[in-house]
Amino acid sequence: MSPHDFASDNHAGAHPAIIEAVTAANTGHAPSYGADPWTDRALAVFREHLGDDADAHLVFNGTGANVAALAAVTRPHEAAICTDVAHMHVDECGAPERLALTKLLTVPTEHGKLVPADLRRWESKRGDEHHVQPQIASITQATELGTVYTVRETQALADAAHELGMLLHMDGARIANAAASLDAPLRAITTDAGVDVVSFGGTKNGLLFGDAVVFLRPGLADSFDLTRKQLAQLNSKMRFAAAQFEALLGPGDLWLRNAANSNAMAARLADAVSSLEGLEIVHPVEANVLFARLPRQAIDRLASDHPFYVWDDATGVVRWMCSWDTTPEDVDAFAAAVAAALT
Amino acid sequence: MSPHDFASDNHAGAHPAIIEAVTAANTGHAPSYGADPWTDRALAVFREHLGDDADAHLVFNGTGANVAALAAVTRPHEAAICTDVAHMHVDECGAPERLALTKLLTVPTEHGKLVPADLRRWESKRGDEHHVQPQIASITQATELGTVYTVRETQALADAAHELGMLLHMDGARIANAAASLDAPLRAITTDAGVDVVSFGGTKNGLLFGDAVVFLRPGLADSFDLTRKQLAQLNSKMRFAAAQFEALLGPGDLWLRNAANSNAMAARLADAVSSLEGLEIVHPVEANVLFARLPRQAIDRLASDHPFYVWDDATGVVRWMCSWDTTPEDVDAFAAAVAAALT
Amino acid sequence: MSPHDFASDNHAGAHPAIIEAVTAANTGHAPSYGADPWTDRALAVFREHLGDDADAHLVFNGTGANVAALAAVTRPHEAAICTDVAHMHVDECGAPERLALTKLLTVPTEHGKLVPADLRRWESKRGDEHHVQPQIASITQATELGTVYTVRETQALADAAHELGMLLHMDGARIANAAASLDAPLRAITTDAGVDVVSFGGTKNGLLFGDAVVFLRPGLADSFDLTRKQLAQLNSKMRFAAAQFEALLGPGDLWLRNAANSNAMAARLADAVSSLEGLEIVHPVEANVLFARLPRQAIDRLASDHPFYVWDDATGVVRWMCSWDTTPEDVDAFAAAVAAALT
Amino acid sequence: MSPHDFASDNHAGAHPAIIEAVTAANTGHAPSYGADPWTDRALAVFREHLGDDADAHLVFNGTGANVAALAAVTRPHEAAICTDVAHMHVDECGAPERLALTKLLTVPTEHGKLVPADLRRWESKRGDEHHVQPQIASITQATELGTVYTVRETQALADAAHELGMLLHMDGARIANAAASLDAPLRAITTDAGVDVVSFGGTKNGLLFGDAVVFLRPGLADSFDLTRKQLAQLNSKMRFAAAQFEALLGPGDLWLRNAANSNAMAARLADAVSSLEGLEIVHPVEANVLFARLPRQAIDRLASDHPFYVWDDATGVVRWMCSWDTTPEDVDAFAAAVAAALT
Repeated sequence: MSPHDFASDNHAGAHPAIIEAVTAANTGHAPSYGADPWTDRALAVFREHLGDDADAHLVFNGTGANVAALAAVTRPHEAAICTDVAHMHVDECGAPERLALTKLLTVPTEHGKLVPADLRRWESKRGDEHHVQPQIASITQATELGTVYTVRETQALADAAHELGMLLHMDGARIANAAASLDAPLRAITTDAGVDVVSFGGTKNGLLFGDAVVFLRPGLADSFDLTRKQLAQLNSKMRFAAAQFEALLGPGDLWLRNAANSNAMAARLADAVSSLEGLEIVHPVEANVLFARLPRQAIDRLASDHPFYVWDDATGVVRWMCSWDTTPEDVDAFAAAVAAALT
Repeated sequence: MSPHDFASDNHAGAHPAIIEAVTAANTGHAPSYGADPWTDRALAVFREHLGDDADAHLVFNGTGANVAALAAVTRPHEAAICTDVAHMHVDECGAPERLALTKLLTVPTEHGKLVPADLRRWESKRGDEHHVQPQIASITQATELGTVYTVRETQALADAAHELGMLLHMDGARIANAAASLDAPLRAITTDAGVDVVSFGGTKNGLLFGDAVVFLRPGLADSFDLTRKQLAQLNSKMRFAAAQFEALLGPGDLWLRNAANSNAMAARLADAVSSLEGLEIVHPVEANVLFARLPRQAIDRLASDHPFYVWDDATGVVRWMCSWDTTPEDVDAFAAAVAAALT
Repeated sequence: MSPHDFASDNHAGAHPAIIEAVTAANTGHAPSYGADPWTDRALAVFREHLGDDADAHLVFNGTGANVAALAAVTRPHEAAICTDVAHMHVDECGAPERLALTKLLTVPTEHGKLVPADLRRWESKRGDEHHVQPQIASITQATELGTVYTVRETQALADAAHELGMLLHMDGARIANAAASLDAPLRAITTDAGVDVVSFGGTKNGLLFGDAVVFLRPGLADSFDLTRKQLAQLNSKMRFAAAQFEALLGPGDLWLRNAANSNAMAARLADAVSSLEGLEIVHPVEANVLFARLPRQAIDRLASDHPFYVWDDATGVVRWMCSWDTTPEDVDAFAAAVAAALT
Repeated sequence: MSPHDFASDNHAGAHPAIIEAVTAANTGHAPSYGADPWTDRALAVFREHLGDDADAHLVFNGTGANVAALAAVTRPHEAAICTDVAHMHVDECGAPERLALTKLLTVPTEHGKLVPADLRRWESKRGDEHHVQPQIASITQATELGTVYTVRETQALADAAHELGMLLHMDGARIANAAASLDAPLRAITTDAGVDVVSFGGTKNGLLFGDAVVFLRPGLADSFDLTRKQLAQLNSKMRFAAAQFEALLGPGDLWLRNAANSNAMAARLADAVSSLEGLEIVHPVEANVLFARLPRQAIDRLASDHPFYVWDDATGVVRWMCSWDTTPEDVDAFAAAVAAALT
């Protein structure tokens, strides 16, 4: 058994219930490409969580979900507005531009969150052929910096987007952590808050692999199945992805238990280190990740035994992330190591 | 337990040993994106099969493999030559053109196989800026029509390609079936036959999901990891894909047993139906699939109980495909149903 | 003064009236990007010729026109059907696939003309996510082989396209030659025949440079100006392109005089060579170009003094093309040279 | 004769000598696509100005030049670094991302100029597959804000780029203004300063249309002709573009006279308005354009009679641009209007 590290929530494996679901789905032949009963049931649980109009489509991974969502609702001269720390801007190797042909218009933020005014920056260029036209705003929930949009903040962004004739996309690679953080149903933070389309994360919340694109209003992407196939995100033995989502989102609320645990562990870690001399927590810890500034020497000392990301070399900010399987013992041991490194 | 149908080899599930391997890999934390020991071992088994220079990269699916392979070795003004029944031309919804920016130059064939002369058709336009420049030829092994290139045929194509300054790509979605059919090692039909890059299929040969792009000569794609990521084909929890390939290609030769079975079942089916009145087998049955022409009425009768693809409505040609888990009893029952439908 | 050759209608220069129009437009400052009175007038003459709904947009060249037209009315999973000799398929270096993201589905023809049945070949795949979806058919008028669609043929293609939910595009790089050949107004062979969008050629008909994309029905491309700009086809000093079109299409019918001359010269050449021993005219000569098969030795002899294209090396077919400025003397001298080469 | 406005240097027409050159080139037939003597001579004058290795290729416009230059030297996972006011980022409707598949990484600046440190911001991500890899830095000379890189500044950027394994591109839409401003030969500010490839502007400096991509070191773009054609930037009657460049860059130094005049007029305008109460010049006036901040009311008053761009609505910054044909009388009249608007 490898230890639980604090490098990334995709260092964790799959929840045992997920493996069981995959094993149970391995029964003889089934139609491919989603025409199977597992997929039917998975799409139904998405509707239970997100509303009757929720039209879910399973894809392989988070980048695939983001790219396919953008490709479905934008034309090449249309742009997406996002923060300058957005995963789709920084961490997807240019996939949105290449695969979705969507130029990203970025804005700086304090803690990773867009605000309505950010959507209006390009309005003076509306209709001017020399400039790409913002068609969608994309927020990450929970954000890349571990903060969480309140329902009211999301609703305000949705209202602003819709007023401007734009859509609101949510990169929900960690949507479960956001819902757990807000103690709100998934529907309340998406459909009911005005979100139009969500990249629904499964991988980071305990699946073997798998994410989904979910359109929350009818008519947004009537030809999405073609888009998904053309983007090489159509899974042939779809039942094995669907069975995982069924287990994650179905009775028992595995999604919520997993997310609540990783959030709780990040809070526990924050508690344990926040008062350490020489360490500063730089963003509110609202989900499963903590960003801290500490001296270079301490970083090096800690890194010699523990894998984690140095977020910003220049400023000495590091990222520590908890997972669905992180335990209190993991946290306490790591916090002790942090304390030791700082002395 | 669902019955075994003859519609597609991706209707089959995963071999139990594959599920076991995934389960065994689900042990605590591991580095993501392929920096884990399962991936190291999987890449090593690829080298054992394909040679020391074989540089394998796991991707999600066959379309992803084909597209990433093309993207890695072509520039946008460079084209790929393939048959007009090539999966990449017909069945990938334009993914090669969109994602790899590779125009496909197609040639008609009798039984799905390119010949060296096909590679020379565009040579009079070499260097002419008005025409895309053929940079790679792509063969499917086994072909979409169930035939198999001999080693000599592959070598002749590789020689022709290299003479013309081109590469040879093999779409090996069913490469195991080809090797089993030829009773040849994987290396003999690829690396040693001059193939430069192969899309190595796993999904259709008993995996849950997963294919690979394997470069067989050094220097072909030094930045392939960037290409793979940008094409949204980078698996974060890579170990679960790697463990499957390790189980498939490692000791025990599961890949060969699976492929040999599906081939044998197709041969058994061919034997059983070839002399039926009103049925004509239209392509040599060299792998795991059989194409037959039969009367429209017989097709309809059979289709009412058995899922399969009508390959060509106009000519009444159907496709019947066997899988790693097809049994002699499945075949005999289906052959009886075919016979009944014909009377 | 260079001699008039028979290699291409873009070997000809510009008609003197075109230069005069450009010179006259060079008067002080004018708004850029088309917000000038020359452009207003040019768009008006397009409406006079093609109907009140004709929405013309000037671009730099024919490839730009084709690509922008396709980009405007297709989404990336949608395809265009064209012949396998279509300029956009053969002679544009893959620009449609790269710039418009439009896969081309090609059909063989006898004399370069699509027929309605060609549009139905892919209908069995309609809605199937594995296949690009035909959204537009593209015909070249006059064709690359020098033939001309009758109004009835165009109308039948438009009817078939519309029945199938598709559009009809006309690559009119030589639309003037077609209209002259049919002795029909431009509107009769386009708008009134059901064509939806035309690439309207100017360059080959006596301009310095310049073509146009003209949408013939409202609502087809409301954001075309953005598409044109993004495709780098927006001319900043637009007045100099517009002034040319105004001179070409305005009073005096320069477009028709130019086209009628080049057509007449091709007919004269056909008359002069058709009965020569050893020469066979391989396509009907209906516009300004003649395709002939002749012995290799004769080709070589003629080519030593005269530039022209060998269309097909294998079969010994050559292309001889007339221009707006080709004279009877040019034709007679060239015909004599052909005759001499054949003896 | 329309008045000379201060809105844009592409509001000006063509210098009479340019029209004469085009007229003179309209002599009978000539080979197309650049195989003509005018093009030979134009490429030779580029070599005279930029060095023996200068490999020039004519294109239609500035966006086409930028996009083709990027497409030629980057692969899709490679990015370009530029300022956040760069024309290619702001004013080309996303053409670089769509046509060249080049993601732009932007940096803020004070006066529109990159500095070497800007090139190093992404170096910690070098080789990391999650991030696009900077392959080229692009500077605009003269900049969009009317400033000019000194030779030393350009050289420092080239040195930094080359150290990092990157190239340096110059968007020289107004390269003539920069050379005139620096009183330096074109070669000194490009080739000799380490620039690798330049988008050489003609349109804004008195041509009817036309720009060029010039590679300044051998081996950078051996297949550029294919790239140019695929991007729809290949002019068929190339001689008419080439003749203009020959006239611009050949004996008589029309390029320099035109640029020197527009620079001088901007300086004259700056002199005339700089001490006006309520007006602040916000960037150094080093080329042919002046940016001023003035009260909203004054802007509105001036704009009622004079076309110009409000650069930033929020801050009340406007852009006034001079052209090759701007006269002292134009400037004095406009300065008087500015003064009147401010009172």
